[in-house]
Amino acid sequence: MQVKISHRMSKPDFQAEFLSSILAAAADPSIISFAGGLPNPDSFPVKAMNEAAGKVLESNGIMALQYSGSQGYLPLRQFICDRYKKMMDLDFDPSDIIITNGSQQALDMFSAVMIDPDDEIMVESPSYLAALQTFHLYYPKVLPIKLNSDGLDAEDLKKVISEHNPKFIYIIPNFQNPTGLTYTEEVRVKVAEVLKGTDIMVLEDNPYGELRFSGKAGHSLHYFLGEQVCMLGTFSKIVAPGMRIGWIACKEPQVRAKLLAYKSTMDLHTNIFGQMVLAQFLQDVDLDAHIETTKELYRQKAEYMLECMDKFFPKEVEFTKPEGGMFVWATMPEGVKAVDVTRAAIEKGVAVCPGDPFYEYERDVRTLRINYSNSTNEDIEKGIKILGDAIKELL
Amino acid sequence: MQVKISHRMSKPDFQAEFLSSILAAAADPSIISFAGGLPNPDSFPVKAMNEAAGKVLESNGIMALQYSGSQGYLPLRQFICDRYKKMMDLDFDPSDIIITNGSQQALDMFSAVMIDPDDEIMVESPSYLAALQTFHLYYPKVLPIKLNSDGLDAEDLKKVISEHNPKFIYIIPNFQNPTGLTYTEEVRVKVAEVLKGTDIMVLEDNPYGELRFSGKAGHSLHYFLGEQVCMLGTFSKIVAPGMRIGWIACKEPQVRAKLLAYKSTMDLHTNIFGQMVLAQFLQDVDLDAHIETTKELYRQKAEYMLECMDKFFPKEVEFTKPEGGMFVWATMPEGVKAVDVTRAAIEKGVAVCPGDPFYEYERDVRTLRINYSNSTNEDIEKGIKILGDAIKELL
Repeated sequence: MQVKISHRMSKPDFQAEFLSSILAAAADPSIISFAGGLPNPDSFPVKAMNEAAGKVLESNGIMALQYSGSQGYLPLRQFICDRYKKMMDLDFDPSDIIITNGSQQALDMFSAVMIDPDDEIMVESPSYLAALQTFHLYYPKVLPIKLNSDGLDAEDLKKVISEHNPKFIYIIPNFQNPTGLTYTEEVRVKVAEVLKGTDIMVLEDNPYGELRFSGKAGHSLHYFLGEQVCMLGTFSKIVAPGMRIGWIACKEPQVRAKLLAYKSTMDLHTNIFGQMVLAQFLQDVDLDAHIETTKELYRQKAEYMLECMDKFFPKEVEFTKPEGGMFVWATMPEGVKAVDVTRAAIEKGVAVCPGDPFYEYERDVRTLRINYSNSTNEDIEKGIKILGDAIKELL
Repeated sequence: MQVKISHRMSKPDFQAEFLSSILAAAADPSIISFAGGLPNPDSFPVKAMNEAAGKVLESNGIMALQYSGSQGYLPLRQFICDRYKKMMDLDFDPSDIIITNGSQQALDMFSAVMIDPDDEIMVESPSYLAALQTFHLYYPKVLPIKLNSDGLDAEDLKKVISEHNPKFIYIIPNFQNPTGLTYTEEVRVKVAEVLKGTDIMVLEDNPYGELRFSGKAGHSLHYFLGEQVCMLGTFSKIVAPGMRIGWIACKEPQVRAKLLAYKSTMDLHTNIFGQMVLAQFLQDVDLDAHIETTKELYRQKAEYMLECMDKFFPKEVEFTKPEGGMFVWATMPEGVKAVDVTRAAIEKGVAVCPGDPFYEYERDVRTLRINYSNSTNEDIEKGIKILGDAIKELL
């Protein structure tokens, strides 16, 4: 039979092709993979989660197995609000929070609620590839905004806004994916000034914000702009990703009501069993202490990878020194394409992620994303040496 | 600020208004609710699930908490295939199955992959309201096909196909929602004959198929039409809905590849912790015995509700005698609108679901959906008496 797939799913999907090759490489145990963004399983609180699961099913098993509300489990939403207050001095109410299947689902919800075909939206350049992929399902015109080493380029933002009519901007101010960069406080203030008083919504993603192992955090744009800014969050990087529990925090009443209606149509609600187990875990353990352990692990991995890069990379390669998060962003010397480095490295048994799929329009870029969170020190040393050799051969 | 919501989410949503009032009524403990479709928590295997959760986290905790593949946990997909073979004599391979957040998410995935704006699709009339709601997000032209007491009207189907160019038909052949009706084998054969050789995909939903407490099951359309038919399934009604674990079974390679790509973009994967706990549970318990207990419970509830209807409803009211599933479908006497009955009943403390939101175009219908699975016998007697009084006052 002749099946006619929708136009939406027949379009060439540049990001998806890269994503599937990354996932395939990461799954091959003979490959040293710096290509993904997996948390280190050494950080997973398996035992405490087991205790939490037992408690939930013993004390409240019926509720954990029955249908539940679309907005999510109230104690979990309350925890998220308390944490926003404590960590970022932000005021959210549990009614502002919708629990989602990881923050990835929240990206889709926000897109569905905001984007009509040909609407203009802004993203950092480069931006998170799976966000670009989700946005593309809704046919927006994507306007990339320049990202400098100190954060979003406020002048470029101002210029684009004066020439266009964008509906929202998607930003990751802390340990950005893919670059690992963090906006300085000065840049945050400037960006907020440019956006203030406009009708442009801000979708601020913050998966890595709590994984800061040096330096000081700046303010969220929500701190300056209030309900103009929706926040995305996730437990994937600070507790465990397998439960697929994230959220969107939205104070804008019209957007929030539509997000909730859409979530309800998508899958009724996020699995309540997982939500309750996670809430019990968060009640029983010291999350700060748990995150400290994870950060220390990642700090050591990052430090070791940077040492190895100093040792094995040609001098002409530049790379960021992350203060947190999971990634180093390396820039190849003039004339060396990241896709060529990636190809040469995978032949030698090392997977990395070229910058290309993180850009909306630019191709054959010189940047590479290198993940350090989920490799042994032995693999880091071996892999970075191989990667260095691959780069040298292309010089 | 002025937020401009997407057109998709600004359209009036007839089904959503009904759905939210149903859920609100069901949540009010002072209301006797026959309006929802909740499984009876007496059927939830809390203890066995607790044991399964412990086993998973003890033996395989890292995998249960880490990111996982988009297609779903292989042992769970294998179980689903084995069950299809055993219960319905259908041949599926685990590679045909994609695990989803309940079958509700699979409805969205199939819609996204198949529907371009103005594409024609067919549904039973009446059909499942949350399916209609999901389809509407993609702007199809919905063609309702007549549903008789023995199943889909094959002649009407033939006529609509000859006059239109529909891309797929969505059907629920067993204990249909909302009517509780089941297609006879004769109707299944006729419907398959009409569809055979066309390019029309079939999306066959089967949430209640295993909840048959009398009579004999007919064949799935997949049995006659092979890869032309995608099957939706869920553990919500036979194990527990809170984990949000369902699936789509699709042998058509192009559609399956696109479903998987879309699922990956939506939320990467369904929570793997829940998938593994469920798979462990299914390995450890006798599912057939568990379902027998649930069926016996529902058989008794249905029987008691029908007894009460015979006793308390005016003679002019007609209602189905379900052989399984969760619903009785009642038709009010000429001149009595279901919405008026619903309004009068809720004032007396009883919630039921009028037929209206299950129809694409018809309004002020005389049909009502009445759920029996999740009420005590005491509430059934009290509630049906009140409902009968409400109807009598409108005669």
